[in-house]
Amino acid sequence: MKEYLFTLEMKVRDYECDLQGVVNNANYQHYMEHTRHEFLESLGENFGRMHDRNVDAFVSRVDIRYKTPLHSGDHFLSCLNMAKEGPKWVFLQDILRIPDLVLAARGRIETVVVENGKLTRGDYFDELLKRQPNTE
Amino acid sequence: MKEYLFTLEMKVRDYECDLQGVVNNANYQHYMEHTRHEFLESLGENFGRMHDRNVDAFVSRVDIRYKTPLHSGDHFLSCLNMAKEGPKWVFLQDILRIPDLVLAARGRIETVVVENGKLTRGDYFDELLKRQPNTE
Amino acid sequence: MKEYLFTLEMKVRDYECDLQGVVNNANYQHYMEHTRHEFLESLGENFGRMHDRNVDAFVSRVDIRYKTPLHSGDHFLSCLNMAKEGPKWVFLQDILRIPDLVLAARGRIETVVVENGKLTRGDYFDELLKRQPNTE
Amino acid sequence: MKEYLFTLEMKVRDYECDLQGVVNNANYQHYMEHTRHEFLESLGENFGRMHDRNVDAFVSRVDIRYKTPLHSGDHFLSCLNMAKEGPKWVFLQDILRIPDLVLAARGRIETVVVENGKLTRGDYFDELLKRQPNTE
Repeated sequence: MKEYLFTLEMKVRDYECDLQGVVNNANYQHYMEHTRHEFLESLGENFGRMHDRNVDAFVSRVDIRYKTPLHSGDHFLSCLNMAKEGPKWVFLQDILRIPDLVLAARGRIETVVVENGKLTRGDYFDELLKRQPNTE
Repeated sequence: MKEYLFTLEMKVRDYECDLQGVVNNANYQHYMEHTRHEFLESLGENFGRMHDRNVDAFVSRVDIRYKTPLHSGDHFLSCLNMAKEGPKWVFLQDILRIPDLVLAARGRIETVVVENGKLTRGDYFDELLKRQPNTE
Repeated sequence: MKEYLFTLEMKVRDYECDLQGVVNNANYQHYMEHTRHEFLESLGENFGRMHDRNVDAFVSRVDIRYKTPLHSGDHFLSCLNMAKEGPKWVFLQDILRIPDLVLAARGRIETVVVENGKLTRGDYFDELLKRQPNTE
Repeated sequence: MKEYLFTLEMKVRDYECDLQGVVNNANYQHYMEHTRHEFLESLGENFGRMHDRNVDAFVSRVDIRYKTPLHSGDHFLSCLNMAKEGPKWVFLQDILRIPDLVLAARGRIETVVVENGKLTRGDYFDELLKRQPNTE
C-alpha cells in the first residue's frame, strides 16, 4: 500500500446508497471532506472553530475518478496526501475498499484559505503542519 | 382537498432515493423544512438572514407518519398549516403525491424561536403573519 | 447510564451541520437509521441484502424530540432499545453527547417488515433477535 | 448567455448550506446530477425506470470548479451541454446565479452506460437524443 499522510477507516451508511444500490457519487465528496476535517483535528484544529475565527478553507476544484462502486456494508480506508501549489493546498485522496484495498475513488481537491474575507498564501496550513511529527 | 396556509410543488430528486428505490425517510424532513423556509420567504423573511440577526427558529420535535412512499419521477405538493401552542409554533405538514393527492407523509413539527440565545414567546412569527393577507 | 440493547459511537461530520452551525435536524434521523442498520449487522444481517431477498423494513413513524444541538467536533453515543407492539417493531433511540452524556435527541421509531410486498407480523426480527445473547 | 441544450431553474434549500453559511460543495454535484436526470425526463426517459431495465448510467469522473458560493435564498440556473468522447458521454454543466448570471460552478462530468452489467458504447443516449428536436 502507498504511503499516506493520514488515513481514516469508515463504513458505508445505507442512506448514502441511491436507487442503483451503490454509494451516490456526491457522497464520496462528503467522505473526502470529512477526512480532511479529521486530518485537521489530528493537528489540533477544528473546521467549525476556524470559521468562528474568520479563517475558512474553501474548495476551489474537485476532480474525482470513480473506479469501483461501494455497496451497503462495505468498509473502506479514506487516505490523504497534500501538496502546496502556489497559494493552493492540493489534497490527493484515495478511497480504498477494505479488505482488498481495491481503489473505489481517487480525488484531487484544490483548496484555498481565506482569512477575514481575503485570499491568503495558505500559510495557515504550513503552520499547522509543523505540529505534525511525520510529514517529511 | 383540505385547505392549507401554504403549498409548494416539488419533485423527487433521484439522489433522495435510497437502495430500497424510494425516497429515504429523512428526506421528507428536508422537504418539510424547505417548505417552512419557503413559507417564510413568502412572508418576506429569510432563514439565513434571521440567523445573521441572531434570531433562530429551532425544531424541538418532529412527528412524521409515513403513509405511501414516493418514487423517482414523482411530483408532490408540500402543504403547511400552523398553530400556536404556548411559546411553540406547531406546523402541520402534508406531503401529497401528484396528481392523485395520495398522502405520502404527514408531519407535526414543533418549533421555538430563540433570540440572542434566549427562548422567546414566539411573537416573531405573530408579527410576520400579520404581513400575510390570507391567514385568518 | 440507562441500559441499551445496542450502542454505537459516532462523531459529527461537518457537512451534517447547517447554516445555524449545528447538526441539521434531519441528520439525527440518519444517525438513528444507521444505528438500527449497524444493530442488524451485529446480528449477522445486512439491510441491502435483506432488500435483495425482498424483505424490507419500512419506517411507518418517527417521533424525535430535540434536546441539545450537536456541534462540529462533537462525539456521541447512538443507543437503541426495541419493543414489539403488534406487527410493529418500535425502536427507542437516544443520542447522547460524549463525554457528558447530555441527551441530544430522543427518538421513537416505528417500523414494519414487508416480505414480497406483503406486510408481515414482524417475525423476521424475532428470529434475528434469538441470535443475540443479551436481549432478555 | 451561452447556448445550452437544457436549462433548469432551481433554488438553494437551506439544509444544503453548511456551517460556513454557503452551499456545501457536494451539493453542486447533486444539483448537476438532478439536472442530468431532468434532461433525461425531458427526453421521455426516467433514471429509476432505466435501472429497473438493467440500464445504468454511471459517472466515471467529475471535475468541478467552484467560482462563487451560493447562499440561502439564491436562485440559479443549472445548464447543460453534452458531447460524445468514445464510449463516454461528457456533460458540461454550468451553475449560474440568478439574476446576475455569475458563474457559481462549472462541471465536466464523464459518464458511461452499462447494460446488464456490461459497458456499452453509449448508443443508448444517441437513440434518446434523436427524440430531442433541437440538438443539432
